[in-house]
Amino acid sequence: MADRPLAAVLTVGTEITTGLRLDTNTAHIAAACTAAGYRVTEAVSVPDDRDRIASAIARLARENSLLIVTGGLGPTHDDVTREAAAQALGRPLRRDPALVERLQAIADRHGDERAREQVLGQADVLEGARVIEPESGTAPGQVVEAGSSLVVLLPGPPSEMRPMLEEVLGSRRTAPEPIVLRCARIAESDAQLRVEDALAAFPKIELTLLASPALVDVVLMDAGAGRDALVEAAQAAALALGEACYSMDGASLPEAVVRLARATLCTLATAESCTGGMVASAITDVPGASDVFVGGVVAYSNALKRSLLGVPEEVLAEHGAVSRETAHAMASGALRLGARVAVATTGIAGPGGGTSDKPVGLVWTAVATPERVEAYRLKLHGDRQGVRQRSTVHALDFVRLTLERM
Amino acid sequence: MADRPLAAVLTVGTEITTGLRLDTNTAHIAAACTAAGYRVTEAVSVPDDRDRIASAIARLARENSLLIVTGGLGPTHDDVTREAAAQALGRPLRRDPALVERLQAIADRHGDERAREQVLGQADVLEGARVIEPESGTAPGQVVEAGSSLVVLLPGPPSEMRPMLEEVLGSRRTAPEPIVLRCARIAESDAQLRVEDALAAFPKIELTLLASPALVDVVLMDAGAGRDALVEAAQAAALALGEACYSMDGASLPEAVVRLARATLCTLATAESCTGGMVASAITDVPGASDVFVGGVVAYSNALKRSLLGVPEEVLAEHGAVSRETAHAMASGALRLGARVAVATTGIAGPGGGTSDKPVGLVWTAVATPERVEAYRLKLHGDRQGVRQRSTVHALDFVRLTLERM
Repeated sequence: MADRPLAAVLTVGTEITTGLRLDTNTAHIAAACTAAGYRVTEAVSVPDDRDRIASAIARLARENSLLIVTGGLGPTHDDVTREAAAQALGRPLRRDPALVERLQAIADRHGDERAREQVLGQADVLEGARVIEPESGTAPGQVVEAGSSLVVLLPGPPSEMRPMLEEVLGSRRTAPEPIVLRCARIAESDAQLRVEDALAAFPKIELTLLASPALVDVVLMDAGAGRDALVEAAQAAALALGEACYSMDGASLPEAVVRLARATLCTLATAESCTGGMVASAITDVPGASDVFVGGVVAYSNALKRSLLGVPEEVLAEHGAVSRETAHAMASGALRLGARVAVATTGIAGPGGGTSDKPVGLVWTAVATPERVEAYRLKLHGDRQGVRQRSTVHALDFVRLTLERM
Repeated sequence: MADRPLAAVLTVGTEITTGLRLDTNTAHIAAACTAAGYRVTEAVSVPDDRDRIASAIARLARENSLLIVTGGLGPTHDDVTREAAAQALGRPLRRDPALVERLQAIADRHGDERAREQVLGQADVLEGARVIEPESGTAPGQVVEAGSSLVVLLPGPPSEMRPMLEEVLGSRRTAPEPIVLRCARIAESDAQLRVEDALAAFPKIELTLLASPALVDVVLMDAGAGRDALVEAAQAAALALGEACYSMDGASLPEAVVRLARATLCTLATAESCTGGMVASAITDVPGASDVFVGGVVAYSNALKRSLLGVPEEVLAEHGAVSRETAHAMASGALRLGARVAVATTGIAGPGGGTSDKPVGLVWTAVATPERVEAYRLKLHGDRQGVRQRSTVHALDFVRLTLERM
């Protein structure tokens, strides 16, 4: 892969270098450049400081064949990326008449002469640059050849930046896009061993694993094998991963659940205690979820477990709220909300509430259909958020497996 | 502020430069360095490539008085940050006997000689470096003086990195920590104007605003005024922001709601349609939420709005699910779950489901107490996720204001 062209990413903004804002543009741009066949050698963030921006642009343009710069193209006095690029690349800025015409109406809204001039400053274009018109927002993008490097200036807001990046990279895509096998409830090391064995016959495929709570993404990247071999390798890897793999087309776990529910004409309901609405919220985050999701109950108090889900008083008294029996009764009760498949969670997310019998991280989840109810005992690690996230993934994945067997 | 010492951040990992993983360490470290009085001049990410890591370390250590490096200290063959630092700083690696002793038990679990050696490689320490013992994980941190710069190597996993960073920076804190005024339901430009006026009397305070859906953080940083003036300025700014400001101590909006509910001995319940569990999930994310939160209903279908919340059939038929009347009835119905304050959301999150009368982004939210019910009509922008997030913020903030008046 030494023959891949090199790329770098530069994000500009004092909000990034003071840690006030998480920079999500870098990951998006790096993924897009990688998918387009580039090797990203460096991602740099600098504050809104003209000299620092200029020196980063000069260095990164010298060392790479593609440099994507975002941020600092807007209308405020902090926005100095245009001037920095002009300084770094030795290209004067020219005010583009067509852009001025488009910006004039916005400039005229300002009574103040300085504010007007700042708006019109967005029409300043590096000599020889191609302008990318904004779909939204006011700042245009710019593409300029500098020596053997292509330098691309894009606005910082992701919704403005992404379509422009797509336009620039679209024509330059040289490698097939990576294939991601998304898996739930499998250890990263286990997934790795299984996939490495399956890939033994595919020498020019690069493997990367990415773990997040209770989830593992297995990423297969082409390293010279070609699209057909990449697909074959992904199929072999999926076979090795078995039922742990819930999607091969980028679908998230909630998306896979909603898709399966639609395909099997099943409706869904939730009964949540420790996850407190996270399972319902994950499902309803999927567009069109209302076709299959009837609703749910967040039964945080025992009173609501009884009144809304019909969990018997005796079950709560004898086994406690965090028990196989309560999870079982909650899931059964949630079926009466009018669903074909219902899922329940009850557990101890912490930091308080744990005992030696029932420690923090103990979670019971159950899935009910009119035919049967199955409950699962989980011992999850992590802090409150981690336990809740893992519980949510497990609950959704039990629903996914139930739907796959329908 | 030119007198602040300069710092840089270097994060190492091919998963970052291929965009497979979002780098959250940079923002955390940049914020911690800023809070400790440093000016962060640059944040760089490079792949697991010894020469690239070494050249970044050499350059950033030369240009800054503090360099924090994370990642690449683990036991796999990808982990080459130690070797890269040795190369960059011209310091040989020495195997630390105390660290070897601690790692031996882990190394002995591996049958394979190469795997054993990789585990023990974590005991290699730069000549003259101070070792930071890990609280969790296996990789120690290292602090070494190189010329006029302090270079700090930390492991990549945030849970291992953060306590070590705290230890290193703790003794070096020179500036008062920034004060953040957290606001809801106010335009960024409006917040800025109000605060700029209030800060006219405070010359050595730096102001930064950070907007996210329906939320604005107003950040005041000391630029030579000192801690007392910073606090005074924050109080003046809070007065100018009025009831838009929900916290001055870092508390999130759900945390502010739970704290107020506890202080006023109020219990809470939710009745959600378009937010689908997000309001309940935000509240239950706060440790100890069970003291005040009884539970909620995700009434996605009209059938559940009737059966669980008692919304009258006629209201749904006459006014529709997205209406003042339905929101009103949902909130009133949720009081019967056993709460003193109940909040309801019903709206059109999109992408489908909008009409000319009731477009995507139309959301009704209502807050009920036994004394009164108030409904609010919202016209929110954004995609499905944006509308749901903004609805959640508005709903929580109406609860906050209701509790503040109790």
